[in-house]
Order: sequence, then C-alpha cells, then structure tokens
Amino acid sequence: MNCLFCRIIAGEIPSSKVYEDESILAFRDIDPQAPTHILIIPKEHYDSVLEAPAEVIGRMTETAKQLAASEGLTERGFRLVINTGEEGGQSVKHLHMHLLGGRGFGWPPG
Amino acid sequence: MNCLFCRIIAGEIPSSKVYEDESILAFRDIDPQAPTHILIIPKEHYDSVLEAPAEVIGRMTETAKQLAASEGLTERGFRLVINTGEEGGQSVKHLHMHLLGGRGFGWPPG
Repeated sequence: MNCLFCRIIAGEIPSSKVYEDESILAFRDIDPQAPTHILIIPKEHYDSVLEAPAEVIGRMTETAKQLAASEGLTERGFRLVINTGEEGGQSVKHLHMHLLGGRGFGWPPG
Repeated sequence: MNCLFCRIIAGEIPSSKVYEDESILAFRDIDPQAPTHILIIPKEHYDSVLEAPAEVIGRMTETAKQLAASEGLTERGFRLVINTGEEGGQSVKHLHMHLLGGRGFGWPPG
C-alpha cells in the first residue's frame, strides 16, 4: 500500500483526526494554509475526483459543512477546494477536499 | 428577483453558456482567472453550499467533470472551488462552483 492517505486511514501513519465515520475521514493538513485547514477524504481509494461517484463528493461536502460549523466558520465563511492532476496542484493521488477558513481568501484561488 | 444568477437562469441577463440541463446551468466567468473558468450553478436558488443538499453538489461536480473533459483538462488537471460567505470570497449569493484550468495553480488557493 503506497498511498499516503490509505496508510493514514489504516492507522499506519498518525494524523490529527477531526472526524471519522464508516466512509469518510477528516484530519488537519500537516502544512496548514489557514487557521482552519482540514482535509476530507473518502476511505475508499479514488485517485481523483474523476474516478469518484457523485454520492462520495456529496458525503465529503456534508462533512465539510459539519466541520465548518464546529470550527465556527458558518458565519465568517470558508473555501472548499478540490485539486485534480498536475496543473490543479494535486499532491496526493487520493481524492481529498480542502476546507480552509479562519482568514480572508484572495482571488484568484492560486 | 434580485439574484444575478437567477436572472441569468431566467434569460434576463445574457451569459456565455456552456452547459444546461433541467437542474444545472454552466457558463463562462465574466472575469476569468484562467484560460478555462466556468461557473456551475444549480437552477434552484441556494444562498450557499450550506443550504444545498448533497445531491445538488454531486450533480454540480459531475457537470464540472464533463466540462473538464470537453475543455481538454482531464489529463492536465484542474481546480474546483466553492466559496462561502465573506471570508470565503463568495461574491454572488447563489451557490456556484468554479472550474478553473488551462494553467498551473499555486498554493495556497487564495
């Protein structure tokens, strides 16, 4: 198993976990770009959003919304980002959604 | 009807439409931040992702993936962004997903 996130899911590599259920894991980014920077990932491996069914993206987004609430971001606002492929800036080839908040975000988004 | 995107859906304001079905509309951003910069919106009005059901986010994402393919971005990669609230940089209070591609994107995403 060479996938970093699959190894985190398996507990082989530690993570700062903030949410877990049967299909989703969420943990704080090891290189945070904002006061709140959480990665939401499906436990089933998909290389990217291109391979994942719509229901999985829906579940990831629902998790992001719950975490935005628990992080106190509902009123302030937040940014959700999914990177795909090299130009998109996808660093780990296991689908993940970034939840970023706690500061203002500029435009363009990278 | 004061919502800019509801007026675009109604055809009261022109847009550079790239996709439409019974529940989704997609059109090119009027202030593009990349060679491909498309907004994907639900026809039903939701102020933000916080109000929208998971199925709607799933349908928006499926549309984004189809458009990424038709824009030639599947191999190169792309970035999907949903802004929520003031700190998130949400400029129009009608849920929308940004599909950005055709160049490399830096980090952090804003």
